[in-house]
Amino acid sequence: MTARMSAIRSIAPDLLASAELTIDSKGEGFTEITRDAARFLKECGAGEGALLLYLRHTSAALVIQENADPDVRRDLAEFFSRLAPHVGRPGTEWIRHRTEGPDDMPAHIKAALLPTSLSIPVVKGELALGTWQGVYLFEHRDEPQTRRVIAHLG
Amino acid sequence: MTARMSAIRSIAPDLLASAELTIDSKGEGFTEITRDAARFLKECGAGEGALLLYLRHTSAALVIQENADPDVRRDLAEFFSRLAPHVGRPGTEWIRHRTEGPDDMPAHIKAALLPTSLSIPVVKGELALGTWQGVYLFEHRDEPQTRRVIAHLG
Amino acid sequence: MTARMSAIRSIAPDLLASAELTIDSKGEGFTEITRDAARFLKECGAGEGALLLYLRHTSAALVIQENADPDVRRDLAEFFSRLAPHVGRPGTEWIRHRTEGPDDMPAHIKAALLPTSLSIPVVKGELALGTWQGVYLFEHRDEPQTRRVIAHLG
Repeated sequence: MTARMSAIRSIAPDLLASAELTIDSKGEGFTEITRDAARFLKECGAGEGALLLYLRHTSAALVIQENADPDVRRDLAEFFSRLAPHVGRPGTEWIRHRTEGPDDMPAHIKAALLPTSLSIPVVKGELALGTWQGVYLFEHRDEPQTRRVIAHLG
Repeated sequence: MTARMSAIRSIAPDLLASAELTIDSKGEGFTEITRDAARFLKECGAGEGALLLYLRHTSAALVIQENADPDVRRDLAEFFSRLAPHVGRPGTEWIRHRTEGPDDMPAHIKAALLPTSLSIPVVKGELALGTWQGVYLFEHRDEPQTRRVIAHLG
Repeated sequence: MTARMSAIRSIAPDLLASAELTIDSKGEGFTEITRDAARFLKECGAGEGALLLYLRHTSAALVIQENADPDVRRDLAEFFSRLAPHVGRPGTEWIRHRTEGPDDMPAHIKAALLPTSLSIPVVKGELALGTWQGVYLFEHRDEPQTRRVIAHLG
């Protein structure tokens, strides 16, 4: 064996619960939603389980990343914009999907490289995030968008 | 708070159910399986829960992407083939795993960059997909393959 | 329809169970934890369900990859190190987050490109992995780290 294992806690299944979160992004970049997820858990009286956050869009993503130095998120956004630059920049001649603007196909590429959904254990009603983890909506379109996320406690 | 939250719906846990889906890919590219997932939910009488789709292979992926313009999927496949080109093309000299063909190691790289499993909320027996979202098997090998996906309703 | 579907097995919900796994990584590269996950399932008497493995860190990842030829994992590590090289190497001039060492920001980039959590169906108490699939902790920091993973059976 490689891992050391804590004592196992066995729990009768909770109620399921779900709600839709609506988030106004500010255009390209990160919006933290950790407290919104925690609020959902509190309002549905969560005990033990797993929280599924599901994004109903294909040009943004949900990510768990460091919540300390904001330069980490700035560098992440820069990395993805270099990996999938706006249509019209050098190296994008092969892109065919151009009708929805120069930021649309790169947004789909970033969405493929990043999670559409996140599953996070819930322990005693709280997200079992690590100390330095935050939950973020990562908007890939240049302009602000209204994004819908399903929160599902199972 | 960042997000607006809908009313919470609380539901007693459903039965769990699972089945194996077998999909014949057509070689490199996308095969839509949205209707197959919906059929599974219908046949097991799903109410509320979450659908887990799990791919039992390491040279393909499951992705949620735009279901409208097929150029989006064509561009996605092209992006990943440029990021992880076939062994023997320029820039692949460092690759050691060459015994299973020039498309095998790139397939493993693409599989690492893309999801092996998808979790999608189920609301009133239906996948809570966004309007423009479809569920796809993304085959990374050049030749057609038979791929097995576990569908698990929890 | 695209997929052939097996008979559906319906099962009453199991107990939930969770534990924390502690893994000492050996620095950059892969540590297999498949047997640790199987041990968790055995010790909690798992029947049917889904195993969620959740990593509480943002500079490592959990991945499912080929468990046969070790060159596959070696090539994967090399691919990601070329895509996100250490700070100070050519092409990293734009990176701002430099205070935690040259391997830190690349580790966050790799963590964004790879899963923080894995969901795997459990059938008759066993992980429904494919024949060639193994479960790995992929450490992105150069030095050995102690990593914590929540195992949640739902």
